[in-house]
Amino acid sequence: MPLWEIFHTRDAFSAQDQQGIAESVTSIYSTFLPKFYVSVLFSEFAASNIYVGGEPTSDFVRIKIDHIARSLDTDEVKERFLNAATRVLAPYTTSRALRWELSVVETPRDLWTINGIVPPPSNSEAEKKWKLENRASAY
Amino acid sequence: MPLWEIFHTRDAFSAQDQQGIAESVTSIYSTFLPKFYVSVLFSEFAASNIYVGGEPTSDFVRIKIDHIARSLDTDEVKERFLNAATRVLAPYTTSRALRWELSVVETPRDLWTINGIVPPPSNSEAEKKWKLENRASAY
Amino acid sequence: MPLWEIFHTRDAFSAQDQQGIAESVTSIYSTFLPKFYVSVLFSEFAASNIYVGGEPTSDFVRIKIDHIARSLDTDEVKERFLNAATRVLAPYTTSRALRWELSVVETPRDLWTINGIVPPPSNSEAEKKWKLENRASAY
Repeated sequence: MPLWEIFHTRDAFSAQDQQGIAESVTSIYSTFLPKFYVSVLFSEFAASNIYVGGEPTSDFVRIKIDHIARSLDTDEVKERFLNAATRVLAPYTTSRALRWELSVVETPRDLWTINGIVPPPSNSEAEKKWKLENRASAY
Repeated sequence: MPLWEIFHTRDAFSAQDQQGIAESVTSIYSTFLPKFYVSVLFSEFAASNIYVGGEPTSDFVRIKIDHIARSLDTDEVKERFLNAATRVLAPYTTSRALRWELSVVETPRDLWTINGIVPPPSNSEAEKKWKLENRASAY
Repeated sequence: MPLWEIFHTRDAFSAQDQQGIAESVTSIYSTFLPKFYVSVLFSEFAASNIYVGGEPTSDFVRIKIDHIARSLDTDEVKERFLNAATRVLAPYTTSRALRWELSVVETPRDLWTINGIVPPPSNSEAEKKWKLENRASAY
């Protein structure tokens, strides 16, 4: 459910970087969500296919995040989430002089399935089982 | 308007699979929408570019769906839609031991154009004409 | 913040076309937004990976737009935006007998960061500075 789509130029991130980012992104959620809920997709572009301000650029990373299972309801929770995202991403972006931009959209929980199953309610026993077993199952 | 973005590893679907999926997806909508409203994009990834739960994976398919022309207003309609999606996708995923996850977002109808034309209202005469001719035209 | 994702077949747009589109898209916003807020990503597909109405197609361009910094609040503003988008895209699509479809989604301003910084409020002094300098900075 948290789906992170990371758009970057081909040379920005090595396979090791991607592994590191994916692990850190997953750790943002893994205290309260099943780990397998967290997907990270790396979309690699040629520099000639990314434009910022009308100019082709090789120093820009764009991150789009879809949240479904949980919403960020208060200012405090939003700030905490954005800070966590920055903590994860800065070593791979700011520290390397890459510009980056991130946005989150929250999509409807009742229009979401995993393996064809509507995931169990937040904090339900079934969700705890999914988290423990790290996989979807009938409930 | 229904836009299905299907993210999958390069070897998950053959051209024939993609054709089959696209036809079945279109059939979900074709009783009530112009067929050309239905777009399906297959985004192929290297397994090293898709992470689930922090691990690179080659057995995962992620589907993002944008609905514009119609919204799913009742629990019954939502369930029927999700069941239809499962019926279409299961033979290409569950039956092949691929994990998959699907989410839908509904976007504003008045911020939508086809060939620069704001599509006609739901169930209007103009929409019927678009459906019959399977193409957009001035109205 | 305006993020334009343009999905097209590999041969639809040359590097020069992409440059032209990106510049024109940027000009839609550059009177009121920092230029570097505008990102355009060109996602190139094989014709066999794009289906419209269940058929693989090489004459279709799909544009997804995320708006964050400003929302289109009135019918008049929406119409003006859609007309501007058509003016930018028609020479590269309609004039070349390509079909195209565009949709906009507005995502929450308070779940958005650039270089880890929540961008300054609309029309604030800080936003004016960002616009003038065409880059993000602490404020």
